[in-house]
Amino acid sequence: MVSTGGGASGGLVALDWGSTRLRAWRFDADGRIAEARSSGDGASRLQGGPPAFEAALRAVAGDWLADARGVIACGMAGSAHGWRDAGYVPAPMSLDALPARMVQVPCGPDVTVHIVPGVLSRDASGAPDVMRGEETQLVGLTAVRPALAQGALVVMPGTHCKWARLQDGRLVSFSTAMTGELFALLREHSVLSRLMAPAGAPQAPQAQALEAFDRGVADAVRAGGREIARLLFGVRARGLFDELAPAVAPDYLSGLLIGNEVASAGAPAEMRDRPVVLVGEAALCARYARALAQQGLQAEVHDEPLAAAGLARLAGAAGLYA
Amino acid sequence: MVSTGGGASGGLVALDWGSTRLRAWRFDADGRIAEARSSGDGASRLQGGPPAFEAALRAVAGDWLADARGVIACGMAGSAHGWRDAGYVPAPMSLDALPARMVQVPCGPDVTVHIVPGVLSRDASGAPDVMRGEETQLVGLTAVRPALAQGALVVMPGTHCKWARLQDGRLVSFSTAMTGELFALLREHSVLSRLMAPAGAPQAPQAQALEAFDRGVADAVRAGGREIARLLFGVRARGLFDELAPAVAPDYLSGLLIGNEVASAGAPAEMRDRPVVLVGEAALCARYARALAQQGLQAEVHDEPLAAAGLARLAGAAGLYA
Repeated sequence: MVSTGGGASGGLVALDWGSTRLRAWRFDADGRIAEARSSGDGASRLQGGPPAFEAALRAVAGDWLADARGVIACGMAGSAHGWRDAGYVPAPMSLDALPARMVQVPCGPDVTVHIVPGVLSRDASGAPDVMRGEETQLVGLTAVRPALAQGALVVMPGTHCKWARLQDGRLVSFSTAMTGELFALLREHSVLSRLMAPAGAPQAPQAQALEAFDRGVADAVRAGGREIARLLFGVRARGLFDELAPAVAPDYLSGLLIGNEVASAGAPAEMRDRPVVLVGEAALCARYARALAQQGLQAEVHDEPLAAAGLARLAGAAGLYA
Repeated sequence: MVSTGGGASGGLVALDWGSTRLRAWRFDADGRIAEARSSGDGASRLQGGPPAFEAALRAVAGDWLADARGVIACGMAGSAHGWRDAGYVPAPMSLDALPARMVQVPCGPDVTVHIVPGVLSRDASGAPDVMRGEETQLVGLTAVRPALAQGALVVMPGTHCKWARLQDGRLVSFSTAMTGELFALLREHSVLSRLMAPAGAPQAPQAQALEAFDRGVADAVRAGGREIARLLFGVRARGLFDELAPAVAPDYLSGLLIGNEVASAGAPAEMRDRPVVLVGEAALCARYARALAQQGLQAEVHDEPLAAAGLARLAGAAGLYA
């Protein structure tokens, strides 16, 4: 368990329940973060159903619960294999509609956990896409930057990168690219991994890493977002001829995949008329910003913990505290 | 060791040394296949350098060697980590140039093995691509269908699918798509694998499997060969909503990846003016033919063992027998 802050209890307990990590915040009665903790009890690591979730919550934040006015959770706690299935709200949907759609699950006799539902989006052909946890980050984003709720393309890099369209206070639609997972698969399990420095090896100087990344983006953009299976084999062929150093091969691969994702989107008006909003971990957002810049597109980066801000906003709207 | 045929010895010993399997044929003095064998001593499974290759050859075909006029090998025996590095001949190149570029390696005091080199192709931007073994299949293809040497787009499905252009007896250029490897990675190691029936489970009826495959191709074609990272996540989302049965999810995934590869190529004149030539395993060629047909393109399938035919042709040209 990792813990920062400390001091008096009370207010709100907020949980971002990821697949591999559980993050917890205690808000004071004034809506400020008083303490932050995390543990490795991600939803995919919990066996045993609801009792395992209750135990994981008590392990990370048991001492906060007695005095909390409310407990709220987003993410995989609400999945079909989570604490309780919170379902999906279909998009287009108002972000203000989420509090009323939360589901309640008891945690012992005195505590109720309010779980935020996910969101379902269908494309023009009816194919489904889902998010669970990112909707709360979007609420947090519009809490810290209200103007974005009126119109923004929000890209949320990670294992499964979300592209979400906000308009007039609504989450209009979104799609998911499994770019981060493809990178991990190719980095660890493919024929390409043999041509790359091991994950623990000394890293290349930052300038060389970024140069390789930019080259990968350029190759993917030149192919117009097509031909990814061919470009990926190029990582191997370049390695065979010493035209790609093992230390920067992962950066080139990252550039190919992020470049393919960005080039696949083209550059519609919604991307040219205003900055693309990037939400996520700082270093990864910086890479997406570089890939967008190669297409002449601007980015606005939000790498602050928006899940916490979103949970506080949703809890306030639901009357869970303050 | 697997063996078919039998009878008197003599003639040529021909080896197709793949990464995971070693295939061996004995040709009689008239150039006919007298016997075929194979073993699991693929190049990637051999530790110990040249002595390990010699031992593997003797294990699968030791009794053929005494009376053989010549021994020839293509594939990974000629890689940098193989029996002896046979290098790469740069394309464009005449297929007739290969015999003179073979390298010799001794196998005991009385036997010499002639190893076929690979081929190197560079695209317009100078990026390298390589083949090793497929050049011999192309020689075999032009042996059984001489007219194709004058002009053909040859697609060779597999782990790493080659797209090779033949013109006026020359291998003009080629590129590689690691489509088969992507399928295996996603099938076995990704988040998608959880939504698929295990590899050993009962298979769906063929009609349902092909319907799912065709749907995957259609989705990839509709996206114009772009957005593969988004389409892949769709496998997961459809599975969550019971809109894709686990038994046919691998077929849909296969359709997405093959469709992406074919749609990425577009349909240039070389694909519209004459049938695309498919070389490889029958069931996989049939899937590529379906994907091409969805784009209105014709295919000519060659699923016979062209490596054997190519090795015999190269050995004859080099004066190794007959």
